[in-house]
Amino acid sequence: MGLKKDFLDPISQTRSGRNNLITDVPGVKVGHQALKDSRLKTGVTAILPCSDNIFREKMPAAMHVINGFGKSTGSIQIEELGTLETPLVLTNTLSVGTAYQAVVEKMIAQNPEIGLTTGTVNPVVLECNDGKINHIRDLAVTKADVFTAFEKADEIFAEGAVGAGTGMCCYDLKGGIGSASRQIEIDGRIFTLGALVLTNFGFLEDLTIYNYPLGQELHKQQEPHKEKGSIVTVLATDIPFDSRQLKRIAKRSSVGITRTGAFIGNESGEITLAFSTANRRSHFPQKKLHTQLGISEENMDDYFRMTASCVEEAVISSLVHAKTTEDVFGKQCLSLADALRTLPDNPGVVKLKKQLGLF
Amino acid sequence: MGLKKDFLDPISQTRSGRNNLITDVPGVKVGHQALKDSRLKTGVTAILPCSDNIFREKMPAAMHVINGFGKSTGSIQIEELGTLETPLVLTNTLSVGTAYQAVVEKMIAQNPEIGLTTGTVNPVVLECNDGKINHIRDLAVTKADVFTAFEKADEIFAEGAVGAGTGMCCYDLKGGIGSASRQIEIDGRIFTLGALVLTNFGFLEDLTIYNYPLGQELHKQQEPHKEKGSIVTVLATDIPFDSRQLKRIAKRSSVGITRTGAFIGNESGEITLAFSTANRRSHFPQKKLHTQLGISEENMDDYFRMTASCVEEAVISSLVHAKTTEDVFGKQCLSLADALRTLPDNPGVVKLKKQLGLF
Amino acid sequence: MGLKKDFLDPISQTRSGRNNLITDVPGVKVGHQALKDSRLKTGVTAILPCSDNIFREKMPAAMHVINGFGKSTGSIQIEELGTLETPLVLTNTLSVGTAYQAVVEKMIAQNPEIGLTTGTVNPVVLECNDGKINHIRDLAVTKADVFTAFEKADEIFAEGAVGAGTGMCCYDLKGGIGSASRQIEIDGRIFTLGALVLTNFGFLEDLTIYNYPLGQELHKQQEPHKEKGSIVTVLATDIPFDSRQLKRIAKRSSVGITRTGAFIGNESGEITLAFSTANRRSHFPQKKLHTQLGISEENMDDYFRMTASCVEEAVISSLVHAKTTEDVFGKQCLSLADALRTLPDNPGVVKLKKQLGLF
Amino acid sequence: MGLKKDFLDPISQTRSGRNNLITDVPGVKVGHQALKDSRLKTGVTAILPCSDNIFREKMPAAMHVINGFGKSTGSIQIEELGTLETPLVLTNTLSVGTAYQAVVEKMIAQNPEIGLTTGTVNPVVLECNDGKINHIRDLAVTKADVFTAFEKADEIFAEGAVGAGTGMCCYDLKGGIGSASRQIEIDGRIFTLGALVLTNFGFLEDLTIYNYPLGQELHKQQEPHKEKGSIVTVLATDIPFDSRQLKRIAKRSSVGITRTGAFIGNESGEITLAFSTANRRSHFPQKKLHTQLGISEENMDDYFRMTASCVEEAVISSLVHAKTTEDVFGKQCLSLADALRTLPDNPGVVKLKKQLGLF
Repeated sequence: MGLKKDFLDPISQTRSGRNNLITDVPGVKVGHQALKDSRLKTGVTAILPCSDNIFREKMPAAMHVINGFGKSTGSIQIEELGTLETPLVLTNTLSVGTAYQAVVEKMIAQNPEIGLTTGTVNPVVLECNDGKINHIRDLAVTKADVFTAFEKADEIFAEGAVGAGTGMCCYDLKGGIGSASRQIEIDGRIFTLGALVLTNFGFLEDLTIYNYPLGQELHKQQEPHKEKGSIVTVLATDIPFDSRQLKRIAKRSSVGITRTGAFIGNESGEITLAFSTANRRSHFPQKKLHTQLGISEENMDDYFRMTASCVEEAVISSLVHAKTTEDVFGKQCLSLADALRTLPDNPGVVKLKKQLGLF
Repeated sequence: MGLKKDFLDPISQTRSGRNNLITDVPGVKVGHQALKDSRLKTGVTAILPCSDNIFREKMPAAMHVINGFGKSTGSIQIEELGTLETPLVLTNTLSVGTAYQAVVEKMIAQNPEIGLTTGTVNPVVLECNDGKINHIRDLAVTKADVFTAFEKADEIFAEGAVGAGTGMCCYDLKGGIGSASRQIEIDGRIFTLGALVLTNFGFLEDLTIYNYPLGQELHKQQEPHKEKGSIVTVLATDIPFDSRQLKRIAKRSSVGITRTGAFIGNESGEITLAFSTANRRSHFPQKKLHTQLGISEENMDDYFRMTASCVEEAVISSLVHAKTTEDVFGKQCLSLADALRTLPDNPGVVKLKKQLGLF
Repeated sequence: MGLKKDFLDPISQTRSGRNNLITDVPGVKVGHQALKDSRLKTGVTAILPCSDNIFREKMPAAMHVINGFGKSTGSIQIEELGTLETPLVLTNTLSVGTAYQAVVEKMIAQNPEIGLTTGTVNPVVLECNDGKINHIRDLAVTKADVFTAFEKADEIFAEGAVGAGTGMCCYDLKGGIGSASRQIEIDGRIFTLGALVLTNFGFLEDLTIYNYPLGQELHKQQEPHKEKGSIVTVLATDIPFDSRQLKRIAKRSSVGITRTGAFIGNESGEITLAFSTANRRSHFPQKKLHTQLGISEENMDDYFRMTASCVEEAVISSLVHAKTTEDVFGKQCLSLADALRTLPDNPGVVKLKKQLGLF
Repeated sequence: MGLKKDFLDPISQTRSGRNNLITDVPGVKVGHQALKDSRLKTGVTAILPCSDNIFREKMPAAMHVINGFGKSTGSIQIEELGTLETPLVLTNTLSVGTAYQAVVEKMIAQNPEIGLTTGTVNPVVLECNDGKINHIRDLAVTKADVFTAFEKADEIFAEGAVGAGTGMCCYDLKGGIGSASRQIEIDGRIFTLGALVLTNFGFLEDLTIYNYPLGQELHKQQEPHKEKGSIVTVLATDIPFDSRQLKRIAKRSSVGITRTGAFIGNESGEITLAFSTANRRSHFPQKKLHTQLGISEENMDDYFRMTASCVEEAVISSLVHAKTTEDVFGKQCLSLADALRTLPDNPGVVKLKKQLGLF
């Protein structure tokens, strides 16, 4: 579940979807596989954009690089063709190649024409560096882990230190997976936009939640964990945006991220991928010309607000759902909840705890 | 060896380097590993930009996407930071992840700080689809193949159907690896620029060599092999370009490619990476400010001409050095030499054969 | 008229439109206004994409920068919104601001809501530097000249040293305005793509026409005019491309340009704008959702070939139609025809003259 | 004067420069010229990057487009060459061409070689639409106004509704010109980074100052002025960044803007130009190779924090310095100070007033 169900967002004046998760967008599913032991705290999160064959019926998509200190794959082709043709895999930076091969195997198994009678396929793997908490040099993630994440994909999924988020660290607190969704009426129909983030960015001193500069207070209390950042954002929607419009939507993820206090750090790989489940594009089109649904540019502000708000809430949700853990050097990486417990109950903290549903 | 040694290029008025290979740039080495049997014709080509530790002393670099129907990795970070921090691996499209993991293993073995006390690393893997000739779905390339290519890296290397070029197809003829170099005097010092291409693009009917429209003649003679393109170009130089200038240099690779007749096909992934061995950038800089060498924009035309000419010759060299082979359906994929043998000896063909050193 | 009427292009296997001009695309009109006296050889070329109100019904568009040594306006908004909302003006570099103001005046006269009850407007002005032949520092172009070019706009228009092309210089020969068109059948309907170029780029020694390296021969004959380049290309079509696809089309203009021998010089501002007259986008949309025509990516190669071929021919046409003139220092700037006259009648030259319809 | 003199920024731990203005960067000067009467509230702001000849000794520069609903000129060449070669002019959208011509006239007067023996020049004009408050359709700005702004340029300059800011509207309050600066020690030397903004963006309900959601309270009080956005940001520094690094710096302006509550609106043209006064690049270089100062990427976070903080403060300063005025329909456009007066003195408002130095 997302942070709050049936939530009316005061800024965008939109309501969250049924579960306040990215999977509120019809057809989207998310699955996690975690590796957890004394050395390992890492994993894989898979996002299935649809239940049918995405290679044969591609989706309009765009990738936006907020800060390019990142190693995600697939961006070149998405930029050129504006389409997504595989499920998405999120994992740790040093396992990107393994995830790439897992996607290749899955796709060629499903599509016997790939690499034989048609071209190849463009795996999209997104990553953050969990080396603060996970012994990332062990290269522990396997293709089997990726397949398991695919198999576990469902409409309901956990947030916090799960899947690819198992070892992530955000604002020097425990981060991980967060999600949220928003719904809007357009010409009488209800459409949904959902966000899923993998949070691994920010400095404690900058953390700001709902305009409360929490990081400034926490900064005095605990030793900082200097983290080499990154945040991956995935946006799904059934609004019939084309790839250019999806890129504009993707850019507004930076607003949601920045609202939590960060300044887009030098070594933070901040990458956003947005796709639309409307207007599928056939790999083997029967005709050259076709009609498709479009949406006018006129009301983009409504969708931009929703996006910023959704991403902001997803980031906060990742912090709210994570649990305190130890980093590779044995130091504690506090959860947001545990960090809040270290503070005296001044009115700001009390209000924030209530807003976050903590205590 | 490149196409012609000690060659004075009439267009750029520059001479080729010692071996007319990318390895004429001091420090650069190239190694191949091929997989060849009844089903497999694929492999790996590794380019080592230097003999010391490139992660700790990075190189200015830029990647330019001519047409983004490609799956190369590493572009996002190179665009942001303008540096290369790993050797380069070229291989087939469905083995990109395997090559990525091999680079990760090599880099973390060499640098114990990666993923522990410093950030991660950005593997650059470049690819073309050899599925026309190679059973690419077998996913036969292993990490061991990549390591072998690294070990074999040398100043002298073969061209044609070798390494990553083993199964490539260019203008419906047998393509593969080609290379060339050019030297120029700048303020009294000699500098070198070298190109290495992996050619897998173009339609036979368009093939034009030194202004001779050979493809138009060959087209009548043999059945076309419809290839789903791609060409990867790597440019190395010791001219002290910064990353912005390297991007400008990289863009001129399209001129060299286009001179051989192609029109930048829809499904051709055309990616160029350029790096400079001058002005290394330390991963652990001792001071924040430093002095470095720069080169004025004023004479870029000289370097642009060299680049276009070098890439054009590298493409032709890949065709000249390749040998006739069979594709996955048992049809012949002719070498340029064998294709020329099918033509009557009109004056244009005779002149071209002489220019190419064939017969 | 374009270079050849009813012309079957051997490369793209497509036929030229009725007049082999950009105006073969229904609705497109072109008008010239020239300034010619002892000091001035400059002017304005206006392209009207439609006869109705383009601000209220915008067109999908894209701008591609081949080499950014240029001062064209309007690119930022076209990149963001993918639409064209004004007619196009081509003129000399130092008159861009004057042309911008003329477009502003025309647009606010036509649309009383601009700047009052709706936003402003994005004038697109494209330029080359005619300072070799024209006393460009005189800043002689006026808003009245721009208005005159608009008024003169017609389906039939002259090529060569006319309008904005009056003082342009291409491959050290007299350049200017050139145009061509191609037609193609898609799902049973005939569509047109047209190009208009303003040629002011290239070094004589590089000039190559239909694979004949003419520049190498001419180079020996006459003193070079070192020109600080630029070429502007405008592509119009009624094929229902979206802005992403139009950008891909625009990129292929570089193929056509390069085929004439140039290597994209350092100081050559090479900018291409492409627009589609299909799928107009309303400034005041009545509904948020709408249906529109789309065209599959599958057959882009056909459109890419047409584009490259069309731009190549437009460049050649600009040379064929221009006349010998004097530059600002009193030296002759030869037309292609006069340059050819200086050469002995070897078979290559004779063939070329025939191909070009000269003599 | 900027918002606060001798100000220690708690976030970046850096102090403001002498006047907390962009002109704290040595050599930079700013001048305003306003047009004010019953119909007109518009003007020009000129930024001189240096007192010597910037065309002959160019500056490293970068332009970043946050949202491209804008009509600024000069971006194409800055992207390609990474240099600034003219002073900057800020004005209203429909006067961009006039300002362009004024810059052309100034530059050709100063440099007799432009357009004759060397190439042309790339005027950089930045704009916002002041049509809410100013009768922008009157096209009242003249070249003489631009020249006057140049002449008035000084180290000390006014903020608020001055120069190009005369008619701007920000968060539905009166906006305009704001500025701030920060200083930092690098390897023992003090360097300065300064920002100047022209604010014309945002919706009242979103306005947030120092984490206080002021807009939510004001929104209930007064009728909203729906503004069609835009913000132009100019960043100057003497830190020896190259153009790639300046682009990274420019991107962080979005953080400062977003901190004041905006979500980067659809119709907001948000453009940032950054230049460095270090490492001038000669138009007529005497040698091809040269040495120059560089700065390592390692400490970019320090400069990013400074930038975000500086831009945030500049935006707030533009609001603090502006005065209540009337829009073109006779409605009041309140200053921030007058808007604050409409609110009851709750603790948040009292604290904010103190922070802003109002009352």
